[in-house]
Amino acid sequence: MSRQSDVRKKALLGRSVLRQLVMLTKDEKDAALLQVADAIVNRKEEIIQGNDLDRKAAIKEQVSQALLDRLTLTDKRVQEMAEGLRQLVHLDDPIGEVLETRTLANELRIEKVRVPLGVIGMIYEARPNVTVDAAGIALKTGNAILLRGSSSACHSNAILTKVIQQALEQTSVPSAAVQLVENQDRSAVQEMMTANGLIDVIIPRGGAGLIQRVVKESTVPVLETGVGNCHIYIHQDANPKMANDIVINAKTDRPAVCNAVETILVHHAWAERHLRELGNRLLEQEVEVRGCLQTQTILPGVDLATDADWKTEYLDRILAVKVVDSLESAITHIDQYGSHHSEAILTEDATAAHVFLTVVDAAAVYHNASTRFTDGGQFGFGAEIGISTQKLHARGPMGLKEMTSYQYRIHGTGQIRK
Amino acid sequence: MSRQSDVRKKALLGRSVLRQLVMLTKDEKDAALLQVADAIVNRKEEIIQGNDLDRKAAIKEQVSQALLDRLTLTDKRVQEMAEGLRQLVHLDDPIGEVLETRTLANELRIEKVRVPLGVIGMIYEARPNVTVDAAGIALKTGNAILLRGSSSACHSNAILTKVIQQALEQTSVPSAAVQLVENQDRSAVQEMMTANGLIDVIIPRGGAGLIQRVVKESTVPVLETGVGNCHIYIHQDANPKMANDIVINAKTDRPAVCNAVETILVHHAWAERHLRELGNRLLEQEVEVRGCLQTQTILPGVDLATDADWKTEYLDRILAVKVVDSLESAITHIDQYGSHHSEAILTEDATAAHVFLTVVDAAAVYHNASTRFTDGGQFGFGAEIGISTQKLHARGPMGLKEMTSYQYRIHGTGQIRK
Repeated sequence: MSRQSDVRKKALLGRSVLRQLVMLTKDEKDAALLQVADAIVNRKEEIIQGNDLDRKAAIKEQVSQALLDRLTLTDKRVQEMAEGLRQLVHLDDPIGEVLETRTLANELRIEKVRVPLGVIGMIYEARPNVTVDAAGIALKTGNAILLRGSSSACHSNAILTKVIQQALEQTSVPSAAVQLVENQDRSAVQEMMTANGLIDVIIPRGGAGLIQRVVKESTVPVLETGVGNCHIYIHQDANPKMANDIVINAKTDRPAVCNAVETILVHHAWAERHLRELGNRLLEQEVEVRGCLQTQTILPGVDLATDADWKTEYLDRILAVKVVDSLESAITHIDQYGSHHSEAILTEDATAAHVFLTVVDAAAVYHNASTRFTDGGQFGFGAEIGISTQKLHARGPMGLKEMTSYQYRIHGTGQIRK
Repeated sequence: MSRQSDVRKKALLGRSVLRQLVMLTKDEKDAALLQVADAIVNRKEEIIQGNDLDRKAAIKEQVSQALLDRLTLTDKRVQEMAEGLRQLVHLDDPIGEVLETRTLANELRIEKVRVPLGVIGMIYEARPNVTVDAAGIALKTGNAILLRGSSSACHSNAILTKVIQQALEQTSVPSAAVQLVENQDRSAVQEMMTANGLIDVIIPRGGAGLIQRVVKESTVPVLETGVGNCHIYIHQDANPKMANDIVINAKTDRPAVCNAVETILVHHAWAERHLRELGNRLLEQEVEVRGCLQTQTILPGVDLATDADWKTEYLDRILAVKVVDSLESAITHIDQYGSHHSEAILTEDATAAHVFLTVVDAAAVYHNASTRFTDGGQFGFGAEIGISTQKLHARGPMGLKEMTSYQYRIHGTGQIRK
């Protein structure tokens, strides 16, 4: 091809300013964030007009109410996006932080210093606020970002990116740091996922389908986010009131988010004594229960859970219930079906809790608490770009530090190796 | 396929003992390492017999002397492998280390704890000592390891793995933690690279061809290692004696390793005054110089360097020389041709050094020192599984800590989110 693709051209534009980005001071980056925040508020009408085009197209295509809601920008939501950028100003600049220092016998001084990742490729669905949130986090961490939203939000993303770039032109931050891939063809996503050397990391945000596609097809390193098939295991001695409160909270506080519980695993001894009461509480909360055969004997009338239920992140007021015969069986179920997000054990037995917290392979493991706390805000990160469910690089909520790498800077006076 | 593949079967065997591995104490792991070290020494004859089969096949195939040397196990090398395992005993156990603790206002206590990565897939060439080194590092860090060496070392790797597994049977460490893929077909490598969910990370060790293949084809996260197209930039004011000593050291101390220098970039003002002398020093050391046009005017008789030279990791007594007109040009050359391994600037100008160390995108950046120091041993890591040239997860020399992930363990007393 003689003509450069949209992805390649914009990734190269992003790369071309990496040298400038890494040299920026905290003040320069913070001033740029405030400038962008102001521009978003000042140009609210244009932004909402662009969003209206997307909304009309979505209504015409009869998308679900949930999707339409995620797509919609209101006056309040635009204000919130700007506020999110202003919040970033209060956070420390992670870039340049010296993580370790070591001086060798030959007086060579080795510093391990935090640096940006480079060019971040963000592939996401529907929510236009991700455009602003992700751009803000990239700016604060000295990264360039290549944004690829879904076609359903193309007008919203286009105007938001334009507002960001034009605001950056008034600042020390090069506007090329934020780029939007406008090619809406699936081939553009494919190209991003295989742009080794041009894009340093791909972050997918959206449904399980998108994330699995990226994980399975990307040869650029991926930060896998979000799918949360979370479990709560209720051990034989769990306090029944605490168990009821935690399960109700983890299921109903916000069923559509990734840290909501999807399946509870209940020790048979606890089930015999307390599951009926928990079932009633769930009924009161209009939660549909799907259970194993043993669950059905205690909660007659609930539908039988199939293998598909154990695998599903419902994101809805539905809860799968399985009676298990031991802690070991619960862990085996989680190993088989969990998505390495958030897993909890409810027990008064410190040894059982210790075993569960040590061997369960998930980003966050809880003893006697709701899974709902897995969240950058709750963890005190101040900003969050997603929740990683993989083990390399970053795990759990990812804030500013997780958007960085490090390098060794070595200061010598002529040292050679003998 | 009704029959499980070799890769799948062994990856699952490795996975099946992860729960046991994470619970092991330092003493249990160290005892196992010593047991394996003793077994390797005690069964030296068997190991060398196996290695002889590989050597004979290699000689028959008329492989290069360098390859034959990398393949060969001598009495001394077997002792060194065992000694490497014994050294690991002196290192701290990274697993279970609490990296951070935070207590929320609701008294929820969040601990960030170091945990193993899981199943490591190691794809490597020729050197049978990698089998023992990598297995030792995996054991010490509570990981399972799936080893896939090259067919040229298949007998050596088979006997070494057998010795390791049989030694582990006498210990608390499950022998399934160390597995050798015996299928020598390239399809086995392909299967490892796409075993998402079965293998947690792939580490390639070998030549540039192998590493590029893995980086470009693997959908399992990769820790990219080793290729070092390293540069030294000599700024206009560099001390000529220091520059000569460092260039000679970085090129000739061990030309075949990844932290040796391959190209020097010389500021024209320095070149005019000092390049002739450096050329003479390189000639004395039997280093072949290939230079740009300007280099040829100062060092008549040297071959003209082509684009291929700027791209090549010679791993030999060959050095490419390019005269540049500024620090900026040197950085641009490194951006274009470097492999993100080790890059140095020689200068008395603190500002130039600061700019170089800040904007050059490499694992290790040096001011006034030889690139030869990029090494786990020199950095004080005590063990090294390779040198990462990527930015995600780990960068530069990778020791024990780089073979770990972390998880959040959250201790509650019934907390729910409101």
